Order: sequence, then C-alpha cells, then structure tokens
Amino acid sequence: MVKANDNYLKLPGSYLFSTIGKKVREYSEAHPESRIIRLGIGDVTQPIAPAIIDAMHKAVDEMGVRETFRGYAPDLGYDFLRNAIAENDYRNRGCDISADEIFVSDGAKCDCSNIQEIFSLDNKIAVCDPVYPVYVDSNVMAGRTGSYDSVSGTWSDVIYMPCTAENGFSPALPEKTPDLIYLCFPNNPTGATITKPQLQEWVDYANRVGAIILYDAAYEAYISEGDVPHSIYECEGARSCAIEFRSFSKNAGFTGVRLGFTVIPKELRAGDVCLHSLWARRHGTKYNGAPYIIQRAGEAVYSEEGKKQLKEQVAYYMNNAKYIYDGLKNAGYTVSGGVNAPYIWLKTPDNMTSWDFFDLLLTKVNVVGTPGSGFGPSGEGYFRLTAFGTYENTVEAVDRIKSM
Amino acid sequence: MVKANDNYLKLPGSYLFSTIGKKVREYSEAHPESRIIRLGIGDVTQPIAPAIIDAMHKAVDEMGVRETFRGYAPDLGYDFLRNAIAENDYRNRGCDISADEIFVSDGAKCDCSNIQEIFSLDNKIAVCDPVYPVYVDSNVMAGRTGSYDSVSGTWSDVIYMPCTAENGFSPALPEKTPDLIYLCFPNNPTGATITKPQLQEWVDYANRVGAIILYDAAYEAYISEGDVPHSIYECEGARSCAIEFRSFSKNAGFTGVRLGFTVIPKELRAGDVCLHSLWARRHGTKYNGAPYIIQRAGEAVYSEEGKKQLKEQVAYYMNNAKYIYDGLKNAGYTVSGGVNAPYIWLKTPDNMTSWDFFDLLLTKVNVVGTPGSGFGPSGEGYFRLTAFGTYENTVEAVDRIKSM
Repeated sequence: MVKANDNYLKLPGSYLFSTIGKKVREYSEAHPESRIIRLGIGDVTQPIAPAIIDAMHKAVDEMGVRETFRGYAPDLGYDFLRNAIAENDYRNRGCDISADEIFVSDGAKCDCSNIQEIFSLDNKIAVCDPVYPVYVDSNVMAGRTGSYDSVSGTWSDVIYMPCTAENGFSPALPEKTPDLIYLCFPNNPTGATITKPQLQEWVDYANRVGAIILYDAAYEAYISEGDVPHSIYECEGARSCAIEFRSFSKNAGFTGVRLGFTVIPKELRAGDVCLHSLWARRHGTKYNGAPYIIQRAGEAVYSEEGKKQLKEQVAYYMNNAKYIYDGLKNAGYTVSGGVNAPYIWLKTPDNMTSWDFFDLLLTKVNVVGTPGSGFGPSGEGYFRLTAFGTYENTVEAVDRIKSM
Repeated sequence: MVKANDNYLKLPGSYLFSTIGKKVREYSEAHPESRIIRLGIGDVTQPIAPAIIDAMHKAVDEMGVRETFRGYAPDLGYDFLRNAIAENDYRNRGCDISADEIFVSDGAKCDCSNIQEIFSLDNKIAVCDPVYPVYVDSNVMAGRTGSYDSVSGTWSDVIYMPCTAENGFSPALPEKTPDLIYLCFPNNPTGATITKPQLQEWVDYANRVGAIILYDAAYEAYISEGDVPHSIYECEGARSCAIEFRSFSKNAGFTGVRLGFTVIPKELRAGDVCLHSLWARRHGTKYNGAPYIIQRAGEAVYSEEGKKQLKEQVAYYMNNAKYIYDGLKNAGYTVSGGVNAPYIWLKTPDNMTSWDFFDLLLTKVNVVGTPGSGFGPSGEGYFRLTAFGTYENTVEAVDRIKSM
C-alpha cells in the first residue's frame, strides 16, 4: 500500500507568500474600489532590458531554422554562458572560479532547495533567523529538521542564528556545531550585509569545523558599499568550504524568465566525496538544462549594452529603496537595510506583531508588505518592504504609510 | 563534520548517455575524417514550428514593455496553458481532467525524477525492464532501492518486470506487490505499446492493491493505431490510482525549449493524504514556474496552425521510423517498435552483446545507436535506434548498416 512522504505533513501551514496572496485577494474582493500597492513579494516591475530582448529574439529565430536549431542543452549549461559568468562575476573580481565549476539552472530557488539532496540526512543545518523560508522548508521535506514546536516556531534539529538589531542583523558564530550553514548576504529579508572580514570569519570557521557554507548571493547586484563582498570566493579558503548560489532574477529582472547558477569548486569535499561530481550527477539525472533562448538572454546580461542598461535598472530600484528608507525614518520608524539591498526592514510601531501590522497596512492604507515573523521567530515585530515596485507606487505607498 | 548523501555513491558508473557521448567523442577525435550519424540519444532535429516561433517572438516583446511585462509566473502554470492542455489533451479525448489538476513544469524528466519525493522511502517501486534509466536512478539517489548486484545489474529492492519478445514487450503484472509502478507507453526504449484493455488491467490492479501508477506518456503524439490509449485517464478508475507525465519535447521539438506537465487528480490519495496538495507544496517551495515565453510557446502547440505544423513534423519522423523498420527488416534483422513510437528496437545479430554491437556500428559504419543493456538487464542483446534524425541521415545510416 502506497504511503506519502510524511515529512511534508510536518510543514506548518502554507508557504508564506501563498498566505499573503490569499489575504490580499480576499481583501481585494471585499473592497473592489481600493487600489492596493504591493511591496510584499520580491517581484520586479521593470521590463527586460532592450539588449536582452534583442538576444532573445535572435535566439528564437535560430530555433526556427534547421541549421541553427538547438535540441538538448548541455546538462550543466552552454559554454558561452558559463564563460561569461566565470569572467564577469568571478575572475574580474579576483575570484579563482573556472567556467566548469558553474552549473547553470532555472533559478536560485530550485538550486537552494535541491542542494540539500546531495548531503546526508544526518547533517545538521544552521540558518539565520529570520530567513528566506525555502532553506528550512526544503530540509523539512527531506526529513532533516526533527519536530516542530508551534509555540516557538522552531524545529528541534535546526540551529537558529538570531539576526537582531543588537548584532546589526549579522549573526554570531553558532554555539552548536552545524554541518551545513545557510548564509544569505545581502540578506533577505533584513537587507543587512556583512563586511569581507566578517565573511572571512565564517569561512575560517567552516574550514575549522568541517562544515559547508551554502551562500546565497542573489542580491549581489545591489551592493553599493566598497567593503561588502560580492562573492564568498573573495575570501581566502572559500573554495574548500563554500557553495554559492546566484540568480538573474533581481539584477536583470528575470523572475519570469528563470535563470540562475550554482558554483561548486572542484576541490570541495564532504569527507572524501567530491561534491562537484555529485551535483553534476544530479543535474544529469534529474534536469535537462535551461532553455537555449533563456541562456542567450543570460549571456546578454554581460554584454556592454546589457551591463549599462542593468546598471540603470538597479539604480532605479535603489532610488526606491532610498525613498522608502528616508521617508519612513523621517516619519519616526526604526528602519535598516536598503543601502546594499532592495529590502527595507522596519520595526513595527507600538510593539505590534508583524501580522497585525500587515493587516493594518492592508486595511488602512492598502499597502502590502511581508510580515517579518513569516521569516522566523526573530522576525516577529518586524516588517519587510521591497524596492521592486514602480517609483510612482513606491512614493505613494510611503506617503500613505506616513499619513497613518 | 559534513557528510555526502551516500546513496549517490551506489550509482554504478555514469548516466548512459554520458557514456555514449564519451565513446563517440573519443572515436571522432581519433578519426576526424569520419562522418558520424547519430541515431542514439532521443533528441530531435527539426526546427521549432513557425506558429510557435511567432508566439515566442510576441511573448519576448511583451517582456520588454512595462505594461505587459510578467514577473513570477503562477507556481503551477499560467491558466492559458493549463486550460489549453485540459481541453485538447484530455476533455477532447473524453478524459475527466480539469485545468487545476495540471502542473506545468520545465520537462517530464524533472517531474519523473522528482515525483518520488512525495512518497515514503518505504515504498517499493516496480519498473519495466528495459526502461528509461531516470526512474530507477532517481530512486537510488533517494535511498529506496537497496543494494546493487553488478553481475545481474539489478537492485535488491526494485521489482523488475521483464519486457521481452515473448510477451511482446508488454510486461505481466508483477508477482511481488509494488507501491509505485512506473509505466511508459509508447515505450522508451522498445517502442512497444499496449492496448486500452491491457492498460485497464493495470489500472484495476493498482486500485486493487493500493498502488500508484506513474504513467509516462511522453511519446503519445506518435500513436498511429486506434486501440492504443493516449492517456491513462482513458481507463476507468485511473483517477484514483494514476499520475501522468507529459512532455512537449517530442511532439513539438521542445528538447531545447523545455516544457512539460504532470497530471494529479484531486482525489488521488496515499492513505488519507492528498497527493495533489503535496505536489503543489513541492512546486511552491522548490520551483518558480516555467518561463512565460516558454509557456506561450506551449499554448501555440494547441493553436490551429500549431497543430497542423506539428502533425507534419511527427509524420516526418514517423516516415524515418518506417524507413528504419522496413530497411532493417528486409536486411534480415529482427525489429519491433516504430509504428506507434519514434523508437526502433532491434535484436543484435549473432547474439552479440549490446555494447559490442554499439562498437561495431560506431567503428565500421560510423552510426551511433543506444545499447539496449543500458536500459536494464532484459535489454541485453538489443539495440535502440531513433527516428529523430533528418531523413537524409536516416536513409544513409540504414544503408550503411545494410552494407555491413
């Protein structure tokens, strides 16, 4: 008799953003006249840059002609894209990463959630608190997290690393020793970053205790300050302890285009097992490569025109971030983030819970954000706003919040 | 100290098609003058049909304009595509499947390999022998298959269902009772099919023993005979025991475009657990939807123009299949398949092993096929040729083989 994977049944409730979607839909149906502004989910609003649109048209044409048609892509990605990534994202920053250490995929969310598969179920994970829910949820589904305590909102076998105002939203090294450490900088949801010396401490720690850092650098394009590392491979020793995830969703607006990549250095080991080979085997067996057209779009991100256009796009969103940050700060809110990241993290007023503040904003001024508690227990009493709206909506949303 | 998932280490050697690629590459480097014809991997050669190219250009343009730009797609697929699938692939064939039972993805390979995640590790799988390697390999990686016997080439906890010339390459019901039954018709690699009464027997069996059939119908478009079911949901009772996988790779040439879907009826249960909800949760947590541009390409497959053009494309490949089948049969080979499937399955001459015949074809006449033994022990002594080449190459390959 067939049985379900009952680890799935341990997941409490639905995925955070599904719950938000449901609440917004219900409010909207009950108040069809209200114009809701969404600064909740981290989805972009600017169209794909012209250089990338041109590249996709060209690739579509190639697919329509027998001589230039492309069937199955190489499992790990086309060389033209892997080479462009290695050169622009790594070698130009002095990071020793070669093209064949880059695994092209359809997005960082898939890679972040699938990567746990190549590790033993006995491994103990550590996550920042608050954190992007996918890291923990994918481990719950695999059966690596123990039991859930609905009062504290924590799992018995997960090591939580609080990111609080007291530590500048940059976690201390954990007291218990983890095997897998999820780090995300610039951070989702807090918008915080860490300096290169701070990240170096993590690398040294991982190498010392034999742990692997799973480094999510999806928001790297938003770094504006000089001492913030763009890649973990800027740190010495990272090749022997770190896997890095990157996305085209936020630097190039690919949330609906779908492209990302994962970097696994060839010398990275778990015991004596080469993790590069394991991930290659997973790609070969369970994946068939990102679409040719989309990989050409990714290549155009690194063209001269593409770079110029995307710099403007990032500046557009960061201008929004500044407007939110300054506006709310001037209105008396306690805010952080927004300088090296497209997320603003604010303390709810009057010790309101995150969901109460969510409901207040939705019903009083029709602005949607994300409750901090949805990202973990230490997110309680906080709220995330994103800079990915249009400028006009961002201005109006801030003005509405200030009017409360 | 971090540990690898040692189930991965149990996998014998590399993925079948990687090994073939390596052998061909080595031969080609040693004999640069030889013109190799590839009828091995099931990759298509005809360009994407004009109606689909037009749809993709249009979608690319939409992505370049703020008003029509699309960010994150709905996790489970856009309604325009889910509705087109439900209507054309199911309701028009009298199958009771609704749009919200369809999960759009980037391909059947991903879905076939990921589906095992929503089931308990205790479940016992049954597979046809020979079979597409992904079904077993994905279960090996999860730790569901026991230990490997390198002499017999079988796993201790897998139930093998031999498909042989004696049973017309259609397996008998297994003696031991499985929990998950992988079936693929039209079959890869044998090209065999089963009739609707035969498939009904499987559905009745699964309902009786409480098993679930994982039905891979990726080659459905190649069915030419009337009594062969296009979907398992043509059988009574399939809604309570079957999940179906479909691909756009072979009916529309999307091997490099990447699109597929999985059907899970809402009443399908494992014990009292709704599998539709579990798979939806997986999509929500680990996947971010197929690209908008690609989903519009999928929609165009169902347009009037698209249907007409794809009918011609399938006819082109089936003409190749007939040429291979007739040519080799006339030359004295024992052949099957090729009537309702793009694969021809031939008995190697003189009791040669599959790999010996592979080497012979590669080195004597520079034709690449796939050794039957790569698909499982009962494939030994057989060889697969695909109809997905160009007509010119197909004719030349057959003539070369006949000349041996």
